Amino acid sequence: MPTPLVTIAVDAMGGDHAPKAEVDGALRAVRHMPVEVILVGREDVLREELAAHPGWERLPIKIHHASEVVTMDDSAAKSLRSKKDSSIRVACRLMHDGAARGVVSAGNTGAVMATSKTINGMVKGVDRPALASVFPTIKGKPAVMLDVGANVDVEPDMLSQFAMMGELYSRLIFHTENPRVGLLSIGEEEHKGNELTKKATPLLKLLPINFIGNVEGRDLYTGHADVIVCDGFIGNVALKVSEGLVEVVRHLLSDSLKASVSGKIGYLLSRSAFAEFKKRVDYSEYGGAPLLGVKGCTIICHGRSNANAIKNAIRVAAEFAQSNLNERLEKGLTQGRAHTA
Amino acid sequence: MPTPLVTIAVDAMGGDHAPKAEVDGALRAVRHMPVEVILVGREDVLREELAAHPGWERLPIKIHHASEVVTMDDSAAKSLRSKKDSSIRVACRLMHDGAARGVVSAGNTGAVMATSKTINGMVKGVDRPALASVFPTIKGKPAVMLDVGANVDVEPDMLSQFAMMGELYSRLIFHTENPRVGLLSIGEEEHKGNELTKKATPLLKLLPINFIGNVEGRDLYTGHADVIVCDGFIGNVALKVSEGLVEVVRHLLSDSLKASVSGKIGYLLSRSAFAEFKKRVDYSEYGGAPLLGVKGCTIICHGRSNANAIKNAIRVAAEFAQSNLNERLEKGLTQGRAHTA
Repeated sequence: MPTPLVTIAVDAMGGDHAPKAEVDGALRAVRHMPVEVILVGREDVLREELAAHPGWERLPIKIHHASEVVTMDDSAAKSLRSKKDSSIRVACRLMHDGAARGVVSAGNTGAVMATSKTINGMVKGVDRPALASVFPTIKGKPAVMLDVGANVDVEPDMLSQFAMMGELYSRLIFHTENPRVGLLSIGEEEHKGNELTKKATPLLKLLPINFIGNVEGRDLYTGHADVIVCDGFIGNVALKVSEGLVEVVRHLLSDSLKASVSGKIGYLLSRSAFAEFKKRVDYSEYGGAPLLGVKGCTIICHGRSNANAIKNAIRVAAEFAQSNLNERLEKGLTQGRAHTA
Repeated sequence: MPTPLVTIAVDAMGGDHAPKAEVDGALRAVRHMPVEVILVGREDVLREELAAHPGWERLPIKIHHASEVVTMDDSAAKSLRSKKDSSIRVACRLMHDGAARGVVSAGNTGAVMATSKTINGMVKGVDRPALASVFPTIKGKPAVMLDVGANVDVEPDMLSQFAMMGELYSRLIFHTENPRVGLLSIGEEEHKGNELTKKATPLLKLLPINFIGNVEGRDLYTGHADVIVCDGFIGNVALKVSEGLVEVVRHLLSDSLKASVSGKIGYLLSRSAFAEFKKRVDYSEYGGAPLLGVKGCTIICHGRSNANAIKNAIRVAAEFAQSNLNERLEKGLTQGRAHTA
């Protein structure tokens, strides 16, 4: 008996390369995984894009029309208020109504978060959703950092909930046994931090998780922690510092490689080394950022996502949807225990 | 007529590689710049270290005895209270008394900040000192970020003072014309930020500086801003994320290079490329972090500073001491104008 397909709604109009990246990513996903994809967006545009892939009608892909598109310039509030037929809203609605089990969008992050929260509601026991970022570490295992942008001003008990959500995500999606959860601060010692981290520490110690205390910025990529908890302002800055720095290093190092061996060979070598390197740090391999604490399963991708990133986000959405993460989270938060597996 | 020498007191016992890095750095400095160095620390230890450099007595180097050493484990408060004859305290005292115009230390950052502030006092008009970090950008010109660790919980008007200090530092030390000053936040639009940045923005707009609004984490290394203002918690995290990531990239990319060409050649190439690359991003080229807002001129170096870093810190201390930065800052803050040059 074939595995039943998990249905994921993809906001096909959201990203910088929409709808091509979304359509290509969906095709790759349905060809390689037990998923069905509903592409949500303007039907004429999507049909035209799909026409470049003869035979797509025989794949588990559907189109669901949505007449409007939220742009990167729209505010989250405005898009919610005035674009009732936007692709992201319709995709969330499909999930809410049970026609899809997950949503993937590379659209305006603020709008996706607000829309998903409004349409789907919060998991019981969670006060505020958190956007989690997943990234590679030296040890090979991905780390989860949250929040990276859903909440800019947070209270200590929100950090405590973020810790529970991140721990479950690492446990269920990356199959980490007893994930090590760290609090992002400015020194390993407990007394080093700001008002927020100092108030959060005793709360984190009370949780039924493997809390390892403060971690520093340099620990993000070392694999020292599986889950890193912080407020959304600092998480967002940390993430963007990383993105920017990788670009800069690439730029400078490529120059250096070219300088250190003769011109053309240096160029070719640097290209080949970077192709290899990029595979290892490419965010698109990690399948986007889950919006934790909201009902259903919403995966937010980088605006500049390519087809590979969309494909992986669909994979993660399917895994997330099948993990019963929300049920476990609710149980953990209402019973004071997160890992009841 | 020879240029008169600028005297800098170097805490010779502070860093991880003390006193060797400090002594070697001092020797390099006095050989290449119009400076005199007072090495502060245990006289017997310093004489022994200097003995490896015959003829040092003919150079403008002196020893000033201090019997105690603040370790990395000492708290700032404890070191101030109980180590009255520590090398850092004696160095600050020499500056306070006019025997030196600047202090360089690679010791315990918290202790150096607290000691310098206590012994030397604050520049009139400044409420809190800020530790500034200087780092390379793609455009070649270094950028200044502050605060990176002196203050973990700050008020909006403190960010405003940090902006004035950073602007003057960029102007006077890096000779930047009309430095572009950005506020570190999570989006370029003014409404994107946390409570602190939103309250600080109108204050920053009132300053007589070239305030360019919000900058994001990814702008740190692009050279988009000459000065980046933030609270010390986020600045510290951003800095340490960068340090950690450079290490990780080095590690991963070295693997990739080795994989992309045959073993030994790949290894040699990656070594040579990194040697070249390191020169461009090496923090030791940028001469440490100035503690702004405190009277005199205190340059704090990384604990693992090598001789080159100490030499460059001595250079920066001499430039800072001759820049009249503090006088201008006081004038700017008390008159509401920073760039009265």
